[in-house]
Amino acid sequence: MSIAENRNATTVDPLPSWNQGIVKARILNFVKNVTNSENANYITPEDRIAVFDNDGTLWAEKPTYFQGFFVLDRLEELSKSNPEISRNPQLQQLLNKNFTNLQLSKKDIMSLVLLTHSNITQHEFNKMVQKWAETAHHPQTLKRFVQMVYQPMNELIDFLKHNDFKTFIVSGGGIDFVREALSNVYGIPPDQIIGSSIKFRYINGTDIGNSTIIREPELTSFNEKEVKLENIQLHIGKVPVFAAGNADGDLEMLKYTADNNSLGKSLEILVHHDDGVREYSYDTNSENVLIEAQRRNWTIVSMKDDFRIIYSNTNSTI
Amino acid sequence: MSIAENRNATTVDPLPSWNQGIVKARILNFVKNVTNSENANYITPEDRIAVFDNDGTLWAEKPTYFQGFFVLDRLEELSKSNPEISRNPQLQQLLNKNFTNLQLSKKDIMSLVLLTHSNITQHEFNKMVQKWAETAHHPQTLKRFVQMVYQPMNELIDFLKHNDFKTFIVSGGGIDFVREALSNVYGIPPDQIIGSSIKFRYINGTDIGNSTIIREPELTSFNEKEVKLENIQLHIGKVPVFAAGNADGDLEMLKYTADNNSLGKSLEILVHHDDGVREYSYDTNSENVLIEAQRRNWTIVSMKDDFRIIYSNTNSTI
Repeated sequence: MSIAENRNATTVDPLPSWNQGIVKARILNFVKNVTNSENANYITPEDRIAVFDNDGTLWAEKPTYFQGFFVLDRLEELSKSNPEISRNPQLQQLLNKNFTNLQLSKKDIMSLVLLTHSNITQHEFNKMVQKWAETAHHPQTLKRFVQMVYQPMNELIDFLKHNDFKTFIVSGGGIDFVREALSNVYGIPPDQIIGSSIKFRYINGTDIGNSTIIREPELTSFNEKEVKLENIQLHIGKVPVFAAGNADGDLEMLKYTADNNSLGKSLEILVHHDDGVREYSYDTNSENVLIEAQRRNWTIVSMKDDFRIIYSNTNSTI
Repeated sequence: MSIAENRNATTVDPLPSWNQGIVKARILNFVKNVTNSENANYITPEDRIAVFDNDGTLWAEKPTYFQGFFVLDRLEELSKSNPEISRNPQLQQLLNKNFTNLQLSKKDIMSLVLLTHSNITQHEFNKMVQKWAETAHHPQTLKRFVQMVYQPMNELIDFLKHNDFKTFIVSGGGIDFVREALSNVYGIPPDQIIGSSIKFRYINGTDIGNSTIIREPELTSFNEKEVKLENIQLHIGKVPVFAAGNADGDLEMLKYTADNNSLGKSLEILVHHDDGVREYSYDTNSENVLIEAQRRNWTIVSMKDDFRIIYSNTNSTI
């Protein structure tokens, strides 16, 4: 670090989108301690592993997971060449965006995801998601979905990276959907993004230039709850020292991080959606993790009180 | 890069353990071109993905894969507390290191790997492999196994890293075995090491501090041939521009790398074991990849001619 950079580091607030308060102080203090080799809680750079949930933690997830909108857009596209889709009453209802009395079981949703995410090459799929991310808009805010990344959390990612943390996304969303839509927005490379996945199949072309990867209609990993830890072991091979989530599906990830580090050597963050004015206010699917976070004194982020702003209007990368 | 570093870069040979010749020139030329933004074959840093096979490519693999010696050591350890192991004639023969007339099917080998690699916590397993790597010796060279890393290849990893390539190991060996034994030796972090894997199971402790990962006796991925590409998609999510291997199990990885990049924008390396004096000389299990490498003009590394030395005697990290 040059002298100029060092001067900046001590005078410029690394988290300008966070309000001053206990939560911000805890984050700054944690990073200060674990990066100071004189401190009892020092963590060597190679062990500075940070994991973030995605939906509801790094970007919004209402009225439904944003990948759901991608599914609808893909369904519309597919219906043009596949008349069977329009003939199916349930899919027809979806295509008409008539969500009243729409009953979708978990199995229905999974079929829909597989229908819209498979039977194409990986290369084609990636291009589709990239194009969608560049163009698709949220129905209520009219922002592009990628503009609904929480600016304070994106700053936190940057702050950790600048302090030699290796940052990973550990999402319940599709691994390639998150990679292609958000890798550039977060500045996190695809290999540091983990998610739910379907079967990849290598196709050996008959001649030079033909080998490729096909996406098969078969779920191989649903990256929620305990599966997040199993995938962290598979993809990262280390115990995180920092974990951030917002829902019951993140409870095990927060618990595992707290359980497998000494006190002071890890930070567990729970993003609490309590801002019905600027974002959404809800505790549904977060009831258990909220109780555990209070019981164990994890760091609960109030979006209302701790976030100075929610979204960035100036981020030129998105 | 400072002026002093820049001067070094132009005067110091980055690959001193390689003999001068066509192969070394090809490697230097490839890196020079793809890192030069004025060159037609320039590759942006985020696309500089390099993948290396491990056994036979980065370290020796004779008389058998080194993980086999770990299996035998673990078997001996396990037999002390489990008398059934000694009562099994086949395992007894292994314990006595009586390999004459030993017939092991693929199924037998898999059972043996699962027996010696599972039903313990991930934490315990990691410690075991680390200890083994620090102490176990090769029966013929009497070197520690980790000292049988090919110094020229380790230099090549460093050279690519210094040129902003992200380097990955893509091994047929067990993902955690390779991570715990070799991550430090190669300077490649665990999350950039991919291999065969068994099922990880998250255990939610009943109280604070108890959650952990258990290794289950169930194979989830055998990382050979086409599976290497499927795992590259799962773990990396990008197409490599550099691939190095030595055996038929690496053919698809080399082919995929060549097929999915324009000519000049990728490098495919085949390590050929033709040095019976300093290492081993064999083509078994490499017959097909050798033919394809010649046909497609990939870069065939002669260990005899292109490696100035095989092993390092001075590497203080191992």
